[in-house]
Amino acid sequence: MKLQTAIDRLTLEEAVAKARLLDGQTDIIEMGTSLVKDYGNEAIRQFRQAVQKSTLLVDEKTIDEGAYEFRQGFENGADILTVMGAASKATLATCYEVAQTYHKTMMIDLMEVSAEKLQQIADFDDAIYCLHHSTDRKDVMNPSDTVAEFHQQLPHIKRLAIAGGIDLAGAKALAEQGLTEIVIVGSKIMKAADITAAVQSFKEVL
Amino acid sequence: MKLQTAIDRLTLEEAVAKARLLDGQTDIIEMGTSLVKDYGNEAIRQFRQAVQKSTLLVDEKTIDEGAYEFRQGFENGADILTVMGAASKATLATCYEVAQTYHKTMMIDLMEVSAEKLQQIADFDDAIYCLHHSTDRKDVMNPSDTVAEFHQQLPHIKRLAIAGGIDLAGAKALAEQGLTEIVIVGSKIMKAADITAAVQSFKEVL
Repeated sequence: MKLQTAIDRLTLEEAVAKARLLDGQTDIIEMGTSLVKDYGNEAIRQFRQAVQKSTLLVDEKTIDEGAYEFRQGFENGADILTVMGAASKATLATCYEVAQTYHKTMMIDLMEVSAEKLQQIADFDDAIYCLHHSTDRKDVMNPSDTVAEFHQQLPHIKRLAIAGGIDLAGAKALAEQGLTEIVIVGSKIMKAADITAAVQSFKEVL
Repeated sequence: MKLQTAIDRLTLEEAVAKARLLDGQTDIIEMGTSLVKDYGNEAIRQFRQAVQKSTLLVDEKTIDEGAYEFRQGFENGADILTVMGAASKATLATCYEVAQTYHKTMMIDLMEVSAEKLQQIADFDDAIYCLHHSTDRKDVMNPSDTVAEFHQQLPHIKRLAIAGGIDLAGAKALAEQGLTEIVIVGSKIMKAADITAAVQSFKEVL
């Protein structure tokens, strides 16, 4: 199982310093949406320079203009880009096509996607489907229950990721379950006193 | 009826020059999502400097982290920010709260929002509800039919906008119908040989 560490809501200078520190420590470094929105493509280019060993995911959260945003994201250095499952099927299809052309990866963020919509967008073979609990919601999810339920509904989806308040116990339960490819951790690592030690703890349980 | 002109997919320098040219000509200048994603807050600040007479809308397309994105958008100079109707109710509520605090405006982009979800998010009194046809979709909408249908479903929603391939004939029909507050035009103005003349033609029919 892979660990994705999300860097968010920092100045670009601080964020790039963290990315440099975590390069090679975590499997995937996520440049969070706040950095996309605050700094644009310049942030992707600086992250690409800092991230040489880990995979670089940019949490673009595309919801329209799929071809434009995905081309910009890959041209500026991303390995994986996110698109919202709530986007139109046409947007998802165009993002997938661009990702395939660049030999890169599309991750579908399933936040607020209905069961009905999910059925319509479940056919992107190489895409990673990310179960995502909105940070604005006050309720808490149990990650392994969420994965189990999803897997029961759509057993043919091979590549699964999960994000949203995941702690060490949650990560351990996901590792034991063995259905998830990527566990995404944000504040539980980035707000730790020693972030490299926190990454190490997560790597050990995964 | 107000005219909102969308500036998109240009270099920042070109986009700001267009904004300066259109300032005071169109009621609302939209800084499109491509400029948010390509250049971040720096683009909002440059647009704010260029736009002194028109209202400045930034098509932020927030779908999570509502408070953070809306604060950044307003602090950097936007008058109106967009949030996706497909976001969680909690995200919409937090964006609305921030907009109210700043005495600014929230526009809800209804792209890909189901009838059921729409009912759940129809209670933001001062928000502008934007009927939006994804640019990635190949099918075409009839704007005044779309507005009539929406108004019949949700007659209590006072503030309506519409976007997606609207031409002069479509704008004229909307003006005659009298239900829409804002007509959003992109390529039909921005791809014209003379964009100020194109704005003038739209202003005349509205």
